[in-house]
Amino acid sequence: MFDVAEIGSTLAKEDYKARMPDLRARLLEAQFHLRRKDVPVLIAVAGDDRIGCEELIDRLNEWLDARYLDTQVFEEETEEERQRPRFWRYWMALPPRGRAAIFFGGLALDAIADRYLGRIDSDGFAARMEHVRTFERAIVADGMLLVKIWLHLPRQELRRRLKRKDSGWQLEQRDWIIFKHYDEIKPLCERYLQETSAGGAAWTVVESTDARHRDLRAAEHLLAAFTARLDEADAAPATRTAEALKPAARPVDVLGSLDLSRRIAEEDYRDRLEDQQRRLHKLSLRARREGLSSVLAFEGWDSAGKGGAIRRLVWSMKAANCRVVPVAAPTDEERARHYLWRFWRHLPHAGKMLIFDRSWYGRVLVERVEGFARPEEWRRAYDEINDFERQLTDHGSLLLKFWLHIDKDEQLRRFEERANTPRKRYKITEEDYRNRERWDDYLMAVNEMVARTGSTGAPWVLVPANDKRAARIQVLTAVCDGLDRLL
Amino acid sequence: MFDVAEIGSTLAKEDYKARMPDLRARLLEAQFHLRRKDVPVLIAVAGDDRIGCEELIDRLNEWLDARYLDTQVFEEETEEERQRPRFWRYWMALPPRGRAAIFFGGLALDAIADRYLGRIDSDGFAARMEHVRTFERAIVADGMLLVKIWLHLPRQELRRRLKRKDSGWQLEQRDWIIFKHYDEIKPLCERYLQETSAGGAAWTVVESTDARHRDLRAAEHLLAAFTARLDEADAAPATRTAEALKPAARPVDVLGSLDLSRRIAEEDYRDRLEDQQRRLHKLSLRARREGLSSVLAFEGWDSAGKGGAIRRLVWSMKAANCRVVPVAAPTDEERARHYLWRFWRHLPHAGKMLIFDRSWYGRVLVERVEGFARPEEWRRAYDEINDFERQLTDHGSLLLKFWLHIDKDEQLRRFEERANTPRKRYKITEEDYRNRERWDDYLMAVNEMVARTGSTGAPWVLVPANDKRAARIQVLTAVCDGLDRLL
Repeated sequence: MFDVAEIGSTLAKEDYKARMPDLRARLLEAQFHLRRKDVPVLIAVAGDDRIGCEELIDRLNEWLDARYLDTQVFEEETEEERQRPRFWRYWMALPPRGRAAIFFGGLALDAIADRYLGRIDSDGFAARMEHVRTFERAIVADGMLLVKIWLHLPRQELRRRLKRKDSGWQLEQRDWIIFKHYDEIKPLCERYLQETSAGGAAWTVVESTDARHRDLRAAEHLLAAFTARLDEADAAPATRTAEALKPAARPVDVLGSLDLSRRIAEEDYRDRLEDQQRRLHKLSLRARREGLSSVLAFEGWDSAGKGGAIRRLVWSMKAANCRVVPVAAPTDEERARHYLWRFWRHLPHAGKMLIFDRSWYGRVLVERVEGFARPEEWRRAYDEINDFERQLTDHGSLLLKFWLHIDKDEQLRRFEERANTPRKRYKITEEDYRNRERWDDYLMAVNEMVARTGSTGAPWVLVPANDKRAARIQVLTAVCDGLDRLL
Repeated sequence: MFDVAEIGSTLAKEDYKARMPDLRARLLEAQFHLRRKDVPVLIAVAGDDRIGCEELIDRLNEWLDARYLDTQVFEEETEEERQRPRFWRYWMALPPRGRAAIFFGGLALDAIADRYLGRIDSDGFAARMEHVRTFERAIVADGMLLVKIWLHLPRQELRRRLKRKDSGWQLEQRDWIIFKHYDEIKPLCERYLQETSAGGAAWTVVESTDARHRDLRAAEHLLAAFTARLDEADAAPATRTAEALKPAARPVDVLGSLDLSRRIAEEDYRDRLEDQQRRLHKLSLRARREGLSSVLAFEGWDSAGKGGAIRRLVWSMKAANCRVVPVAAPTDEERARHYLWRFWRHLPHAGKMLIFDRSWYGRVLVERVEGFARPEEWRRAYDEINDFERQLTDHGSLLLKFWLHIDKDEQLRRFEERANTPRKRYKITEEDYRNRERWDDYLMAVNEMVARTGSTGAPWVLVPANDKRAARIQVLTAVCDGLDRLL
């Protein structure tokens, strides 16, 4: 696909001078309107022409309003970054709505370099590209205007530059490497570009032999992308066909098969609790030493006992090694980004345990059932979540997801008990009672969630919780077993 | 001050068991109410008894609701942290309103260890404690409930523990160091505690010979602090005496002495602009190589030309080495913390330049004049700002602050010009005209700001800006000179 970009296009200085002022004015204006419409913009710049990329990025910073534009250069991973899944640094650098960012290198060059240097094999390369596609699809679906520009330099031009004395100060070792191994690197680039051009995330290849031609082409392409998006936003919003809450096929009722009558006697409970807590204490110290991170997600009916189960975990560990994040309404910084961002941002350092009290599954549970997310939003969430979780487990983290299950009668009993206990009264609201009316909708959503997001690497632990003691022992044991398996 | 904490207090198991349940219930309840009242809580735990601190922190995580409590252990600085001023990591770890955090070690142990290890001399130790006082005063004034607990172990008890075989697994090399150099370390601790106990930030020293006594005393102290704060919040808010907008003494009118008639001819401008931009390009590359960070703050009248001056800076540098942060309304995550937090969070990596388009000076300008900040808030801001800036310059960063000055007639001319230029019309609003009515109040606020926050290390660059060309040249030159001085 580079052949079309090896035609030696050039642009005369006069032509450039005649056309750029108007282009720049229109680009700036379009950026302003995108900001007013709260559109986030991501401009990915990569290519086999490193110097050309740097020059183009400097130009973009001249043309656009730099106050609303961040340039992110992705070099070797830092210590902070290495402790998280690979895409963490891309997620953290995503522009919020109304701002723009340039990613230099990033996803593309990281993948190609890792493959070229043998850090990943062919399968790993394919898997990486699949992550890239999912990532880009997710942010585009969430409203990101994504523009991807690849600068290509024909080999003979690279040779010419390397031999020119006067440009020597700009050239680095790695430019020579690209030149010497061009035949090996080029097919990797081509494959990457082909396989990551799906949907709203197509690459535009620009020949960078001539700087003026390169800059003008890039500016035109950007302006076209900005304008298209603005026109789209100006058009009347597409009338959405009312999509049903129901899934395509009714999922298997996995919850219905749980044995809620299970009980543990008080005495037995004390012994087993102590055993498992002692076990968790030791395992968590070992996890800390060996750098094994854990991410636990707790979901369940209101009053199913998430809090109590989480406390038993926390009490078993050194406080410094463990953190609980209660998930409530997102902050406005979180609302300005893809819904998964608020979970990515908390991912723990090596060796620590992070416990989410409610989690990213809110998207396919409460947001789905209550209509806070549109059907196309929660429907695509299953894939986004699966990709997120695969990144966690590929990174080597322990990931466990708990659904604490009680029946409707038990819930009512607990609500009434709380209402009668002064210290617990604040825990119960009108809304809790209202939610009961949609029990069956939630039940269906949970069943579908478990069916679509459970996997060997990221299993759902379904916990019958009518008996709190049995539930706590099961949770503790599952966490210990999980750590044991990976240590 | 440790003598009173060496009386060998112990607590019988029965007494502990009899008193703790009620204490715990009340602590939990108080934490809940503090959360509901949006009070942020910071519990600093430090001491010469490392193991005792760790045990107490684990206890606190049991007693309190761990979902709203983060435990921050401050160990050796990470690479990320070393690239910022020392207090950056404390600022970043501050709990937002409604949450609680435990700082283990942190400010106290960092200071004492740095002094003991000879990383700072006696003056450095004094300066550090002054920063601590300013930091704690700032967060307390902002509403933080700060509780500081120091665990003290008498030397004979430490000796006893070190000799006990069965506790050997918990002991580390550093416990032996404390023991061997107790006589040198103890006076440092005492001095630190004395000098950082001012105002609402007093240390409570607890003897930790006996674990039960230690835990009960800490719990009681915490509960007392929580309760006092809740009682205070319940009381009717103190009627604030109407404080005048006016400063104590009318500051010198430094702005009035600026020569606004200065002009640069077009041709001269082109040459000098190119010279300075070329110079900045080179200097910024050198700064990047040598790890010199810069922080620039731009303030000035509406339409004084901040944007244009900033653009000339940005255009001179590689985009990746420079970032502009436009300061508008704070996000809700920012509003949940001290007003300086939103500036600390952006502080750049080593070698980069960060440009604030409007800055922390909003506190003593627009917030003061428009009444968004209460008089006691903007009055204490001068000290808080001076301390913040001293940390930046002590860290070795270049800090420059620009006030772009035009007169009232020139502003009106520019407003009208903008209103008549379609592309610039959006830049002008009703509010801009309204702000003109308070010109004299702003003038006074600017004069006081310059008088109270200008210093050799953090100078104000006052820029007559009726002529945009002259203003841009002055800004560019000042930045170049600043870099030159530090490189």
